[in-house]
Amino acid sequence: MTLALALDLGGTKVEAALVDDAGTIVAGSRHRAPTGAAAASDVSLLRSAIDTVVDGCRSHDRWAEVTAAGIGAAGPIDMTAGTISPINLPAARGFAIVEAVRAASGLSSVALRLDGTCIALAEAWLGAARGVRNAIVFVVSTGVGGGIVSDGRIVAGSSGNAGHLGQLVVADITDGAAASTVEQRASGPHIVAWARAQGWSGTTGEELAAAYRSGEDVAVAAVERSAQAIGVGLANAATLLDLDLAVVGGGFSFVADDYPERIAAAVRAASVNAYAARLRVVRAGLGGDAPLIGAAALVHRTDLV
Amino acid sequence: MTLALALDLGGTKVEAALVDDAGTIVAGSRHRAPTGAAAASDVSLLRSAIDTVVDGCRSHDRWAEVTAAGIGAAGPIDMTAGTISPINLPAARGFAIVEAVRAASGLSSVALRLDGTCIALAEAWLGAARGVRNAIVFVVSTGVGGGIVSDGRIVAGSSGNAGHLGQLVVADITDGAAASTVEQRASGPHIVAWARAQGWSGTTGEELAAAYRSGEDVAVAAVERSAQAIGVGLANAATLLDLDLAVVGGGFSFVADDYPERIAAAVRAASVNAYAARLRVVRAGLGGDAPLIGAAALVHRTDLV
Repeated sequence: MTLALALDLGGTKVEAALVDDAGTIVAGSRHRAPTGAAAASDVSLLRSAIDTVVDGCRSHDRWAEVTAAGIGAAGPIDMTAGTISPINLPAARGFAIVEAVRAASGLSSVALRLDGTCIALAEAWLGAARGVRNAIVFVVSTGVGGGIVSDGRIVAGSSGNAGHLGQLVVADITDGAAASTVEQRASGPHIVAWARAQGWSGTTGEELAAAYRSGEDVAVAAVERSAQAIGVGLANAATLLDLDLAVVGGGFSFVADDYPERIAAAVRAASVNAYAARLRVVRAGLGGDAPLIGAAALVHRTDLV
Repeated sequence: MTLALALDLGGTKVEAALVDDAGTIVAGSRHRAPTGAAAASDVSLLRSAIDTVVDGCRSHDRWAEVTAAGIGAAGPIDMTAGTISPINLPAARGFAIVEAVRAASGLSSVALRLDGTCIALAEAWLGAARGVRNAIVFVVSTGVGGGIVSDGRIVAGSSGNAGHLGQLVVADITDGAAASTVEQRASGPHIVAWARAQGWSGTTGEELAAAYRSGEDVAVAAVERSAQAIGVGLANAATLLDLDLAVVGGGFSFVADDYPERIAAAVRAASVNAYAARLRVVRAGLGGDAPLIGAAALVHRTDLV
């Protein structure tokens, strides 16, 4: 059995772990370091956070079994150049993460993909999209992002940025609509802000979920607004790519028990063609480990990449 | 050298020809039969139109070199079942075109794809998308449709319907917008109708092109409206798939010399991410032969399929 060094770089932290070829995170191999506000202005802090988590992995007694590394990173990325330019880390613009991981790990084989791509890979490998040849996997939380499986393989795109569902335009921008993208109409923070603008007094997604459960009108309308925007985005994706399945995860997806059903209804309403309207919408099969498992899939499941 | 039997089935006619492995239509092998209004209500007329054009090809003295057939058909299709349900031919709903072509030709290997997929294949093989690993190819005429090249291969999707650019939603459907899809805002007939609703007195795309050349305000606004809707649709496709190139063809694309540039400007305006905004927009390299050449690519360029 070989092991992968898997890394997940987000806007606030970097994680690393050893993952075996069954997709299991090796016990005691998981390490995390904050990047956070400081790294946003000083890229050397990002580099040392990577060194810290990779060093942690190297100290594991199964390190010798590691053959290659996979990285999932917040986007946009440049897969070919091996660099990232995450929106939340302005100082890291153009950061050569592949080279940094090579230097820290001593591994020559280091693959880089978008975090959304890795989550989709994980769901295709071991989660709700297993065996599905045409699917989109996405998360709704602070932002909205995802990855695509098309004709049985993960879509990378020219520079590795395929899957940015949140930046699809779903409103008439010539009308000057302030919120014209999926993310601007569906993400947790945007929906909470929208509900507050309608007079709701809560401040968190958890409070909105509670208000939804007790049937408060504004909360129901807010959840529906989110599902509607996601549904139009998915209808566009399904129309363009002829997909069978959409897999939804992320913290905000738990705002309502029937969030997937509301999204599916919105897909049906927004689809001109029957092949798009039939898109199934289900919850993710994996939880918070998906980014690391997907990064490991870049090593273990090259048949999907 | 082997030859392909290539078929193109549209809403009004079926064409067939022999195509060699350089993508050249064999002289004297091209046959056409109308399907038209009659076939819309009587599927036996569609069957006999297919028989007619295939018989024409079989009478060619190089017929013995034909090894397999490729079909491009108006959608939606069911690639797996080998059936078509073209919108303009209601009687043909569920028509088993693969079986019909097998019976007419005696060939056992018959591949079916969407017409837009075939046009994209042709442009990827011999046209403006040659060598481009991530591209969308589309036509703007009576409708708007196309095909996608992703990570170096044509996207089929689950049932073969990937590429329906015209059915992407680009307006807020919760506002009850009457024209919410790319096609409803960009196709020739829709734009002519829109211009007439603004007081323009012409009736054809050619007249609109002339009015545009002479700088008539309504014609300029109409062309811009079309380019704008296409641009938003392409921005969504580029955001989702990280594309390098968009190739535009079809009769209405000649409405203005700067139609591709107007589309590219609309893509830039609608793109949140820089990787999507950089999409190049160019005119198609092939003309009316593209559907047959692309159908032949199903036989000759299996590396792209």
